Amino acid sequence: MNFEHHISSVENALAQWNIPQDSPNLAEPIRYLLSLGGKRIRPVLTLLGHELFNENAESVISQALAVEVFHNFTLMHDDIMDNAPLRRGKQTVHEKWNVNTAVLSGDGMMIQSYDLLLKGQEAKFVELFKCFNQTAWEVCVGQQMDMDFEKREDVSLDEYLEMIRLKTAVLLGCALRLGAISANASKEDQEHLRLFGEHLGLSFQLRDDYLDAYGDPEKFGKQVGGDILADKKTYLYLHTANHEDASIRSELKSLHGNSEDPSAKITSTLHLFSKSKADQLTLAKSESYYTSALSHLDSISVDDVKKTALRKLASYLLERES
Amino acid sequence: MNFEHHISSVENALAQWNIPQDSPNLAEPIRYLLSLGGKRIRPVLTLLGHELFNENAESVISQALAVEVFHNFTLMHDDIMDNAPLRRGKQTVHEKWNVNTAVLSGDGMMIQSYDLLLKGQEAKFVELFKCFNQTAWEVCVGQQMDMDFEKREDVSLDEYLEMIRLKTAVLLGCALRLGAISANASKEDQEHLRLFGEHLGLSFQLRDDYLDAYGDPEKFGKQVGGDILADKKTYLYLHTANHEDASIRSELKSLHGNSEDPSAKITSTLHLFSKSKADQLTLAKSESYYTSALSHLDSISVDDVKKTALRKLASYLLERES
Repeated sequence: MNFEHHISSVENALAQWNIPQDSPNLAEPIRYLLSLGGKRIRPVLTLLGHELFNENAESVISQALAVEVFHNFTLMHDDIMDNAPLRRGKQTVHEKWNVNTAVLSGDGMMIQSYDLLLKGQEAKFVELFKCFNQTAWEVCVGQQMDMDFEKREDVSLDEYLEMIRLKTAVLLGCALRLGAISANASKEDQEHLRLFGEHLGLSFQLRDDYLDAYGDPEKFGKQVGGDILADKKTYLYLHTANHEDASIRSELKSLHGNSEDPSAKITSTLHLFSKSKADQLTLAKSESYYTSALSHLDSISVDDVKKTALRKLASYLLERES
Repeated sequence: MNFEHHISSVENALAQWNIPQDSPNLAEPIRYLLSLGGKRIRPVLTLLGHELFNENAESVISQALAVEVFHNFTLMHDDIMDNAPLRRGKQTVHEKWNVNTAVLSGDGMMIQSYDLLLKGQEAKFVELFKCFNQTAWEVCVGQQMDMDFEKREDVSLDEYLEMIRLKTAVLLGCALRLGAISANASKEDQEHLRLFGEHLGLSFQLRDDYLDAYGDPEKFGKQVGGDILADKKTYLYLHTANHEDASIRSELKSLHGNSEDPSAKITSTLHLFSKSKADQLTLAKSESYYTSALSHLDSISVDDVKKTALRKLASYLLERES
């Protein structure tokens, strides 16, 4: 990999980041959540996006942190909404403190992310801000769609793709584009880079759906079948729920919401997924976004050798041998 | 009054404001909260702050809305934290929908307020943003202090003043300053205008504390003694709780947290407030901030006649005959 040094830069910069000290009780939950780790993919994308066009990636380290802090703000509030007890194996903020703390520290975190976005890039701020703020709104829309889907029985595959695009993928595109904007990249290159990130995010999320059902528990690091037990309307589920064969549809619906025998529920649901070819179709869709992502990367008008790190990051994210 | 036409402008602009239509469920609670009304003092301050230096107040109507939308975002989240069932006599968002909706629509509202801040003022955006974002953080710190105070028995009068300054007053100062920044006012005038707003806010809040205890129920529009029954640590309470006479302190503490006989609690607490002269001192403190506010207005380097509307707004806010 030739992006590991960027992960270190991000970790160092996060450790050195001074949250204003005027309210320890506001800052402590922010510091706590950021200390739980994570792959730091998003800030690394900002640094790599910049490096495509300008060698001095350190000049956008603050913008990279802005993306990471914003991302963690969404996690803090999403965990409230999902009533999640754990985040990266540790207590969520609303569990360790309480809901009020998670609401307010999340708000503070978001405000701080804007400050980070400005730092060192005043001349480019309007452009950076437009990209960042539109994405922030889209992430909220994605979260709202996700919550709406829980109560709906007629979610289509296209709607699902749009939801994961907004909730997850657009921030990857934005992270890259912030790096490109600050490096004075052309609008066309910015757009290819944004779509590289967005399609990579879609590919990743679909593969994550697949692995949750079919992954090796040891490699995947999560309980396999977790989405099935939680009755999540994933791409696998929705494909099967919208299948032309009525018996498949009705069997799936009888399992959905049923928590009598969890182990049997997983086995039977997986059987229906396979029968409807949802497994193959989910992987194929993920693959297709991956190909599209790489093709957008190819289209960017810089020397191919400069794209190596982003290609490696893409294959690392999708856990490919490359 | 010569600021009524500005209230109409704000109401019209709010009614015409297009929240992005990509998620009706996200937008509807935002629209609902804004429709509950309010005096619209903050956006009017932005328009009047601009008008001191430049006649074309309409050029900052979007920035005025930014302040109002931001203020309402804080109300949406504060109402969650305070577990408040009503806002302006109607159901709060978390009551009408649920906590998740209030968290997420609040987040979306905040994001939209930044978009409004940019609109039509790109050239001045960095300066406007710095003022707005610092204030946003301060408002969060003020809310955190307010929550911290609930659990503390040793809150000082100075700490209380700092809390209400951050939670309430700084946004008034910021609203005015945004108008001045966009009108190219000097730093010195910006600072006087900001302090006019901040001291007006402090004066207002202290008078509100007084009226909650001693006001005419019909004029005040709230239950008199509400703060006493809710065991709020207001300026009146803290003055009495920190009084040199130990018997006054202990009597007050025996009433605090006691909900056996609400009516007797109000009467006895008011008696202690008066005995410790907290009533007079609260009014005097409010008066002193009012005087200071007007003195900052006087110091601004524009024709005195241009300050008439702001003087009228100040006396209207403090319900004075003038």
